[in-house]
Order: sequence, then structure tokens, then C-alpha cells
Amino acid sequence: MMTENRIPVSLVGLGSMGAALAKAFVAAGHPTTVWNRTPEKADPLVAQGAVRAESIAAAVAASPLTVACLTTYDATLEAFGPAAGEVAGRTLITLNSGSPAGARRVAAWAAEHGARYLDGSIKDTPWAVGGADTLIYYGGDKAVFDEYEQVLGVLGGDTVHLGPEPDLAALYETAVGVTLTTTMVGFAYGASLVGSRGLPATSMVRYSVKWLQLIERILPLMAEQIDSGDYRQESGPLRLFLDIMPDDLETAEEAKVDAEWLRPIHDLIRRAVAEGHGDHGSAALVELLKLP
Amino acid sequence: MMTENRIPVSLVGLGSMGAALAKAFVAAGHPTTVWNRTPEKADPLVAQGAVRAESIAAAVAASPLTVACLTTYDATLEAFGPAAGEVAGRTLITLNSGSPAGARRVAAWAAEHGARYLDGSIKDTPWAVGGADTLIYYGGDKAVFDEYEQVLGVLGGDTVHLGPEPDLAALYETAVGVTLTTTMVGFAYGASLVGSRGLPATSMVRYSVKWLQLIERILPLMAEQIDSGDYRQESGPLRLFLDIMPDDLETAEEAKVDAEWLRPIHDLIRRAVAEGHGDHGSAALVELLKLP
Ligand SMILES: NC(=O)c1ccc[n+]([C@@H]2O[C@H](COP(=O)([O-])OP(=O)(O)OC[C@H]3O[C@@H](n4cnc5c(N)ncnc54)[C@H](OP(=O)(O)O)[C@@H]3O)[C@@H](O)[C@H]2O)c1
Ligand SMILES: NC(=O)c1ccc[n+]([C@@H]2O[C@H](COP(=O)([O-])OP(=O)(O)OC[C@H]3O[C@@H](n4cnc5c(N)ncnc54)[C@H](OP(=O)(O)O)[C@@H]3O)[C@@H](O)[C@H]2O)c1
Repeated sequence: MMTENRIPVSLVGLGSMGAALAKAFVAAGHPTTVWNRTPEKADPLVAQGAVRAESIAAAVAASPLTVACLTTYDATLEAFGPAAGEVAGRTLITLNSGSPAGARRVAAWAAEHGARYLDGSIKDTPWAVGGADTLIYYGGDKAVFDEYEQVLGVLGGDTVHLGPEPDLAALYETAVGVTLTTTMVGFAYGASLVGSRGLPATSMVRYSVKWLQLIERILPLMAEQIDSGDYRQESGPLRLFLDIMPDDLETAEEAKVDAEWLRPIHDLIRRAVAEGHGDHGSAALVELLKLP
Repeated sequence: MMTENRIPVSLVGLGSMGAALAKAFVAAGHPTTVWNRTPEKADPLVAQGAVRAESIAAAVAASPLTVACLTTYDATLEAFGPAAGEVAGRTLITLNSGSPAGARRVAAWAAEHGARYLDGSIKDTPWAVGGADTLIYYGGDKAVFDEYEQVLGVLGGDTVHLGPEPDLAALYETAVGVTLTTTMVGFAYGASLVGSRGLPATSMVRYSVKWLQLIERILPLMAEQIDSGDYRQESGPLRLFLDIMPDDLETAEEAKVDAEWLRPIHDLIRRAVAEGHGDHGSAALVELLKLP
């Protein structure tokens, strides 16, 4: 381990993710200062060698680099209020989920108080922190990214700089991340269907995983269609999705499972077919999702 | 290739998927009879060595085994009306999507007319037909499955018998398959968000694929939680999904992208948290999806 890597780091926000980040810094030999609103959450990290700061201002003052992992950008702004006098000349990196506008609000706050700022997003779980393959992408000041790239590598081996705008990671986080919610709801829905027959959710896993792997193979094609605007698709066009909708609702009704959450998705597909996208792939849905 | 495998097969329905199935049978050396409502779609298969039947009744009469791949079970019943007199003593295997009730309607029709029946579902694309890893699962008469397992192996190497009920493949098809629709809509939505910034959908693919791979690793855990009813989850609980919703809507508004389809999903999560599932994983959504 190179000594240059071991710069002091402060970690603010010790929830599931923040605690995993702090642990990775401690394990990599970085002098690590930690702060959390609910102080007890720092105890396990202090036991591992981290130093507890008595205030967020003290945490920021302890290191040239502070990494924040709170729930949202607005929570971050709220928490950092008392540290506004300490951030000048230092670097703040946020690693939470949220909107591009939220990231820009933090960027503006950092600029106002003389701090350098980078925003990142962790596309993985806390237990993957530090993994060689763990993806964390960043948006904002390239000079900050370059300076801390090796330090950030401690948190995830697949470290990407998306571009100079400080809200790019939040943009991709939201764009890419929406499938987590929808897939989880979809899996819970599917499990309710098989559950209505007394069959366990675990019996679906192997098939669902294979299905997701298929979707992975389809995405590059779908992306090309979206970018080219040529949505023609012989196999699996939107009209097939439409054909099967009554069957999907019949299945839900028989299983006594709530299909309400599917209705606006069905409406979207119905409208797409009505507007001439019947022989197009689901890439054509972008045309309907864009508001005038 | 064993001669026993080369039993004559009839293929009814030559859309994208049916044509791929017929092609696989022809390529494997099975005497293959084909029929499609729109007759021209048989031309390429006839050129490859298939025999065109002049009616669906003639197609059924030509082989001990008829495989049907129409859009839905109801379309299948409609198409097979004129073949009712020919199915006795023969085997019908349907390979379309649809509801368990639809599969049972076809099963009842087959029983009424003295045919043996098996229903299957192809969890892959037409171009994967015949692949060693291509999953096709079946529900229904195990004796039929055993008799034709090798023949069906021509269509996909990962051939599974789910159980004796003739509607099990349709049940799993619906339960597992719903994530296709939701993931595609989610990807199109995400592409609309990055597109609003002039960024191509292709730039999302690598990240989306990694995200889906993460979801694959989460599903076994989620399934276990659903089956045990113990939904406690430290990392990524439902309250975090709730925290981020205003940001998600802010992102959509700024990008001028329609987030209506997300609203009932948000409502579901909001209700789940209100009912005490804030510290539970998304597995807890099954509790809300079950109707009284
Ligand atoms: N967990 C995951 O699987 C995962 C994966 C990828 C990304 N993320 C993202 O990482 C971020 C953190 O997630 P997490 O799982 O660590 O959440 P968490 O376990 O709920 O922790 C949230 C943290 O934010 C702090 N906090 C919230 N509001 C605050 C405020 N107003 N002032 C001060 N501190 C405040 C909490 O402090 P208290 O302890 O005092 O409440 C806690 O330290 C989120 O944006 C999440 O979307 C999480
Ligand atoms: N394509 C895929 O990627 C895929 C993947 C997995 C599963 N599947 C499932 O496979 C099934 C077939 O899909 P596909 O892609 O082959 O669809 P397709 O290309 O639209 O073909 C539909 C077939 O059904 C026939 N048909 C529909 N209604 C009929 C009726 N009333 N009478 C007679 N024939 C009728 C059509 O005949 P005409 O040619 O005369 O219209 C055509 O042969 C669907 O259930 C689909 O969900 C498809």
C-alpha cells in the first residue's frame, strides 16, 4: 500500500452504506474520522480504529477529504449547515442517491463556501463496498476525481468519471436505478402469483435470473433503437405485449393479487400501439414518455 | 442423431417464435409439417424442407405431435376449431404466453377431443431457439413430457417439467415474465432521462447490465424473505425507497419525462411503509399485493 494513498479521510453518515465505506477506509489504512447524527452508530467503527468527531464541523476539519453518505442531498445540506465554516479549501464527495437538481444544490453550496466538490453514486450493496468489480460513478470536477481516484478505488474497483457536470452521477443513478424498484415490485408480484398456488418464491429464482440475463442481452439492441429512432422489431413487438394483457389481468384476478400497479404500464403500451408502434419494440416507449 | 428422435412433427403458427421452432425441427431432421393462418409465412420453411399443410386439420393429421405457437390460448382454441376431429390419440403441445386459466381451457378442449396435452413456455427469444442453454419449461402430463423430452430438447437445451398441472408453465411464465415489461419500461424511462441531457441510451447499457446483475444476486435473498415472512432488512429497506421518491419525481419533472407509470409503484411503497414495513425489504410488498 502506497503511503500517498493513506490521506486522512472523514466519513459523515454511518448508515448501512456509510458504515461500509468507513470500514473500507479504515481497513485500507486511511486515518479515518467519523461522524453520525445518531452517535452510537460510530461505536463499531471506533472499535476498528476510526476516530469519532464530536460534531460534523470537527469531522470536516479533521481531513482534507470528507465523504458524505446520507439518505438524500437535502439531508446532506441540512446536516452540513454547521460545517459551512470548515469546508473552504477542502473537498466534499457525496455518495447518496437523489436527483440531479439535488446534486446541483449541494454543488452550489460547496462552491459558495469554497469547497471542491464531486458527487458519486454506488451501484451496489454495502457488502460489495471495496470489491474489485464494484461500480461507483462520479460526476463533477475532473481534477478532484484525478486527485482522489486511488483513494476512491478503496471503495470500489470499477470507478468511473462520467463527465464534468456535478449532477451526472445523480442523473445516471436515477436513470439506471429505476429498474431496481420495478424489478423488485415485479418479483414480489410474481411471487404472489405462484404463492397463491402454494408454491414458494424460491422456485422462481432460477427462472427469474435467467430472464434477467436475457434482458441484459436485449438492452444493447434496445439502446441502439432508442438512439437511432428506428424502433422496428420483428420479434417481441409491442402488439404482443398488448395481446397478452387480458391474460395477465385474468391471472392476477384468479390469484387474488393486486395488479393496479401494472395498469399505467398497460396504458402506456396500449397508447403506443394506438399511435402506430405496434410493430415496434419497447424502445418506442421513449416517444410516449417524453412530455411535450 | 438417433432415428427415434426423428418423429414427424407438425408446427402450427409461424410467427417469429413459431418459425424459429419449425426451423429447429427441420434442421434436426424431423419430418416437419407446417401451417399458418397467413400461408405465405410458410414459404421460407418449405424452402428449407418443411411440408406445407393446406389446413390446420391436415397439419394435425400429418404427425403424432403438433406444436402450436400462436399469440394466446384463446387464439389457439379459435384456430384449432377445424382440427377438433383430428386430435384424438395425438399430442398437442402449446408454447405461447398467457394465463393459467387459458392453459386450462386448452387442456379441457384437448381432453374433450381425446388429445394428450402439454403446455410449455419459452423463456427466451426466437434466435435462442435450439440453444444448449435455452430455457423452456412445461406443465402437464409427465408421461407426455417423458415421451417427447428428447424431441423438445431440439428447441431448447434447458428443458424443465414443472409439475403435472397443465397450467404451471403459464403461471411461471406470467410470474417470471412481468419483469420483462417493467424492466423495458424502466430502461426506456431511464433513457428518456439521460436523453433529455443529450446523452445516448447506449451510455446507460453497461451500468444497467451491472445493476441487473446485482438484482440477480439479491433475488435469492428476497425469495427467502418472502417464503419465511421475515422481511427485516438492514440494507436498502423500503423507507429508503420512500426517502428518494421526491427526488425521482423532481428528476422526471426537470427532464420533462412522464413519471405517471411510477405513481402506483410509489403508492405501494408508501402504503407499505405506513403499514409498518419501513425497515423491511421489498419482499414485504407481497403483503400489500395479496388482495383480501
Ligand atoms: N443500502 C444500500 O443498499 C444502498 C445501495 C446503493 C446506494 N445507497 C444510497 O446510499 C445512501 C445512504 O443509504 P444507507 O443505506 O446508508 O441509508 P441508512 O442506513 O438509512 O442511513 C442513512 C444515514 O443518513 C443519516 N441522515 C439522514 N438524514 C439526516 C439528517 N437530516 N442529518 C444528519 N444525518 C442524516 C442517518 O443518520 P442517523 O443514523 O442519525 O439516522 C444515517 O447515517 C442513500 O442515498 C441510498 O440510496 C444505499
Ligand atoms: N417473439 C418472442 O420474442 C417471444 C419470446 C417468448 C415467448 N413468445 C411467445 O410466443 C408466442 C408467439 O409469439 P410470436 O413472436 O411468434 O408472435 P407473432 O410473430 O405475432 O406470431 C403470432 C402467430 O399467431 C398466429 N395467430 C394469431 N391469432 C391467430 C388466430 N386467431 N388464428 C390463427 N393463427 C393466429 C399468427 O398467424 P398470422 O401469421 O396469420 O397472423 C402468427 O403465426 C406468444 O405467446 C409470445 O408471447 C414470443
